[in-house]
Amino acid sequence: MPRKSDRQADSEVISASTLGGAAFPEVSMQVTRRRIAGLHEVAASLGILLTRSALAHVQEAEARVHRPAGWSWSGFRIMYIIWMFGEVEARDVARISGVSRQTTSSVLATLESKGLVDRQRTSTQDKRLIAVRLTPEGKTAFEKAFVEQNELDSEIFTTLTSEEQLTLQRLLQRVLTQITASLSGDD
Amino acid sequence: MPRKSDRQADSEVISASTLGGAAFPEVSMQVTRRRIAGLHEVAASLGILLTRSALAHVQEAEARVHRPAGWSWSGFRIMYIIWMFGEVEARDVARISGVSRQTTSSVLATLESKGLVDRQRTSTQDKRLIAVRLTPEGKTAFEKAFVEQNELDSEIFTTLTSEEQLTLQRLLQRVLTQITASLSGDD
Repeated sequence: MPRKSDRQADSEVISASTLGGAAFPEVSMQVTRRRIAGLHEVAASLGILLTRSALAHVQEAEARVHRPAGWSWSGFRIMYIIWMFGEVEARDVARISGVSRQTTSSVLATLESKGLVDRQRTSTQDKRLIAVRLTPEGKTAFEKAFVEQNELDSEIFTTLTSEEQLTLQRLLQRVLTQITASLSGDD
Repeated sequence: MPRKSDRQADSEVISASTLGGAAFPEVSMQVTRRRIAGLHEVAASLGILLTRSALAHVQEAEARVHRPAGWSWSGFRIMYIIWMFGEVEARDVARISGVSRQTTSSVLATLESKGLVDRQRTSTQDKRLIAVRLTPEGKTAFEKAFVEQNELDSEIFTTLTSEEQLTLQRLLQRVLTQITASLSGDD
């Protein structure tokens, strides 16, 4: 447990309201730096900011675009992969989308039940090989949602100037490259 | 379906290998801009980069820190909230962590079964009110994992200079503020 003086100080800083939303990264770091010595504070803050802003982005996109369209964010990611390839092996979808195999399989089943995706066995030898395509309805619905997602992204990132947007793009690309290439991850 | 000439051109650009990992944002935009006119391209690219880099970050953190410690990324987020408050109502945990109520409830049950979290009914009147705390073992395990997560974050963001890290921090904070405050989301 933190020392009593820390807990009193913390209770002045944090509450359910101050910790929610956009203040979380700053408030949580105020509490954390007093309890754990020797932190790389900017790195900790960046880890929190990256995951929090991505989560908020996904929740906003699901609420405004994807749930109304009838699918989840994972559903949208998966339809995007299929749309790009035209036809793709089901086993490749999970790897490329970064969505787990289990979730991919369940999402594909849901998309198929809604008539958005079509699955066909491609080989009589290997029953695991399944070709996935968008149906004409799926393609139309995906493209409409992609444009709506783009409007939302435009609304979100317009808070930055054009130059800042390009800076953020460059920095995030370097972070993504660092995580996928230099560390153990392969997606 | 895309026109035949587009599909041929696309098949030169994309493959399961070129689309995986860090090249996804760039390759997917190459394909998309030829098929959908009038896109806000930088905004689309930023949306993809933000969610992809956060996902890669979470996957790397789960593989290297959190699965070995015995919990998921959601488990870590939830323990962080409890650790900051010392004691917190279960119903507040979901809201503050940004993890759904259903997932929060299932994660808390798992953490309790591992002896990391302790749940106690606080009111005889309202049976929904449950106070959640970390056990001494939970607190020790969390703080060890937080330091390891911080080492990993440090390793990831060291690809940027100190100045670039501060720039990324500032830009992500503005994006998070924009999503949570100006749009419909509240976390």
